[in-house]
Amino acid sequence: MNAELLTIGNEILIGQIINTNAVWMAQQLNMIGVSVIHMSSVADERTAILKAFEDASQRADIVLITGGLGPTKDDITKKTFCDYFETDLILDEKVLKDVTEFFAKRNKEVTDINKKQALVPKGCLVMRNKNGTAPGMWMEKNNTIFMSMPGVPYEMQMIMTSGFIPEIKKRFTLPFIYHKTILTQGIGESVLSELISDWEDSLTEKEIGLAYLPSPGMVRLRLSSKGLNEGELISKIEKEVENIKPLIEKYIYGYEEYGKDQPKIEEILGKLLLEKNLTLGLSESCTGGYISHLITSVAGSSAYYNGCIVPYHNEFKQALLKVDPTIFEKHGAVSEACVKAMAKETLTVFKSDVSIAVSGIAGPSGGTSDKPVGTTWIAVAYHDTIIAKCFVFGDNRGRNIHMTASTAMNMLRKLILKIEE
Amino acid sequence: MNAELLTIGNEILIGQIINTNAVWMAQQLNMIGVSVIHMSSVADERTAILKAFEDASQRADIVLITGGLGPTKDDITKKTFCDYFETDLILDEKVLKDVTEFFAKRNKEVTDINKKQALVPKGCLVMRNKNGTAPGMWMEKNNTIFMSMPGVPYEMQMIMTSGFIPEIKKRFTLPFIYHKTILTQGIGESVLSELISDWEDSLTEKEIGLAYLPSPGMVRLRLSSKGLNEGELISKIEKEVENIKPLIEKYIYGYEEYGKDQPKIEEILGKLLLEKNLTLGLSESCTGGYISHLITSVAGSSAYYNGCIVPYHNEFKQALLKVDPTIFEKHGAVSEACVKAMAKETLTVFKSDVSIAVSGIAGPSGGTSDKPVGTTWIAVAYHDTIIAKCFVFGDNRGRNIHMTASTAMNMLRKLILKIEE
Repeated sequence: MNAELLTIGNEILIGQIINTNAVWMAQQLNMIGVSVIHMSSVADERTAILKAFEDASQRADIVLITGGLGPTKDDITKKTFCDYFETDLILDEKVLKDVTEFFAKRNKEVTDINKKQALVPKGCLVMRNKNGTAPGMWMEKNNTIFMSMPGVPYEMQMIMTSGFIPEIKKRFTLPFIYHKTILTQGIGESVLSELISDWEDSLTEKEIGLAYLPSPGMVRLRLSSKGLNEGELISKIEKEVENIKPLIEKYIYGYEEYGKDQPKIEEILGKLLLEKNLTLGLSESCTGGYISHLITSVAGSSAYYNGCIVPYHNEFKQALLKVDPTIFEKHGAVSEACVKAMAKETLTVFKSDVSIAVSGIAGPSGGTSDKPVGTTWIAVAYHDTIIAKCFVFGDNRGRNIHMTASTAMNMLRKLILKIEE
Repeated sequence: MNAELLTIGNEILIGQIINTNAVWMAQQLNMIGVSVIHMSSVADERTAILKAFEDASQRADIVLITGGLGPTKDDITKKTFCDYFETDLILDEKVLKDVTEFFAKRNKEVTDINKKQALVPKGCLVMRNKNGTAPGMWMEKNNTIFMSMPGVPYEMQMIMTSGFIPEIKKRFTLPFIYHKTILTQGIGESVLSELISDWEDSLTEKEIGLAYLPSPGMVRLRLSSKGLNEGELISKIEKEVENIKPLIEKYIYGYEEYGKDQPKIEEILGKLLLEKNLTLGLSESCTGGYISHLITSVAGSSAYYNGCIVPYHNEFKQALLKVDPTIFEKHGAVSEACVKAMAKETLTVFKSDVSIAVSGIAGPSGGTSDKPVGTTWIAVAYHDTIIAKCFVFGDNRGRNIHMTASTAMNMLRKLILKIEE
């Protein structure tokens, strides 16, 4: 089964926004065994949209359309749908109810413009949008399915996940695709690829695909295979996961299960803290609250997370975390002594069982010859055990902050699990 | 003059990489007065490429092709070019010299695969690639220009900047395009559109386009126009920016010049703090350090930023920020009294001139009937002046955190600038 992704909107064509929807949608479709064979972006303009529909229907079984549905879009997209599918717009009472409730919840009046969101082409299958006001619309013509969704990523994702994908799975028998992703931290893509090259070479004849998915501080390794026998497929992939394990065990921090969201290091750490009944406190200098943000982005984190101090100058490291000022004089704030003192006091301040403390030079300036930009000290503490390590990441501020956060959380995970560095 | 962007490569279609090239190219073309009317991505496959060429030549004056030229790509793209342009591949001596020098510089041997990069369709105009081995190739058929480039961003950018754009400017007289974007915060798309509807209607006869670009907590308004006189164009758009200002002044937090990066609220606030010589302290409950992360993501923020406390439980609000425990009993932690107390003590703890304090129910659970999920109190303080406001955002945890952060930073910006809410 083939799909085409069609984006409607001038904002894409003038380069004002990056089409991240396409990536997400392509990944989701791949996971259910649907291949994306074409992607297009066209203007908010009738003839361009009609031509794109016509072309897409000749190539693909499913056309997934995003964009062109905002309340201020002058209805060009929906009117064009009606022309193409030879139908009219009608008011959908359920959508109108959803729109009204959406605004009521936010203590806002529904305007006439908002109410227009409840107009849909007659005969379409409406898919509800709990994250916004424009619904998803499933239409068919000449054996091609057209699925229209708003362009706002979390609205589109909501409709894909709760509406479109279940409907496709219900109506069609798709080949089974199995993916398993190994999450690694602390090893670069090229070193990793050398370490596993023999194993990687052996995958081709087994018809297993391997993809390297690098992000700051981490590399995900995705194994994929397609087939009609679900059990065989799973055991084939799981066997290869077992084969690679001994080669890279100390870098693996988790696995991503097929069809589930990629577990983030903050989720893995959070789960561990919950299991072990441990509470966490943080003190962050160079990461400026980013680790705290990641920890608290996980729903339910208040069960194990107590809080954070971001002491962005030495005087606050001294005042709030009792770092002895002689440490700054002798070793500087980016030092083993400083992060160990921070980690220790953080346990006391937040009455926690474990803590993380970081201090580094995020850049782009502030480096010296012996402490270049990217130099970062990380300490993790578990009651009386405190370990600290120094890293030199790079010269990109944002990347350094990301790498420090993921490295620090993984260090704490390893300390709790007593895994040797 | 119209252009189409065509990307060749399976890695885009399976969602493995984001097509950032398209954004960059669209911006560059816009700036020289070339409109992008269509974007497509197709597989590394002969018939798909030929069909895409045919379709594109019917729509566009220029077709810019990226990808499909890597040394391991099996030459499908170049062979398909030869089929389409009815020509053969020939060895280009200049390119061969470039390729040989490229490897010599890196102390590497040139392999036969690398030498193939010097094969180009006979009759094409070769544009040199100083950042890699695959050259740019300019070809023409039926009054359409086809420009092929490698997909590696910095190679493509090099060929665009030094080869393609100068050539297009030399051969054609192009109009100017001017965009200006107004950044707003604190008003939804539909309410905004009603507020400015008369002004918006007046734009059509002035041949100015208007686009609404919403993101969590913000709406960007983009004005665009095209013409032959650059000065007239700029003053026409700037005049309309002045016209709309009185209608929505209190929501505007900045402007975006086309071709420059979009200024973020944390950058705008940081610049303001620097100008006014003010220092900032934060205390964040529901946002869990996210505001601190945004503030410190700006290089040089240590000049105005002192630090943050994330007291994720009431006992730490009490211990670290001296919030009177009777406040929790009487009003709860998500209350005006609590955030005002936090904002006040934050000034003292961090010896700062201004502060932000937030406390809310980020969700997805923890809401009550009078304080549903999304309820958030924000206080901003500037010396003795403390103002607080309550918002009810929604039921998505991540979105609530984003909206709280942007709203809080804009509230502080307004307090400093004495803009009425």
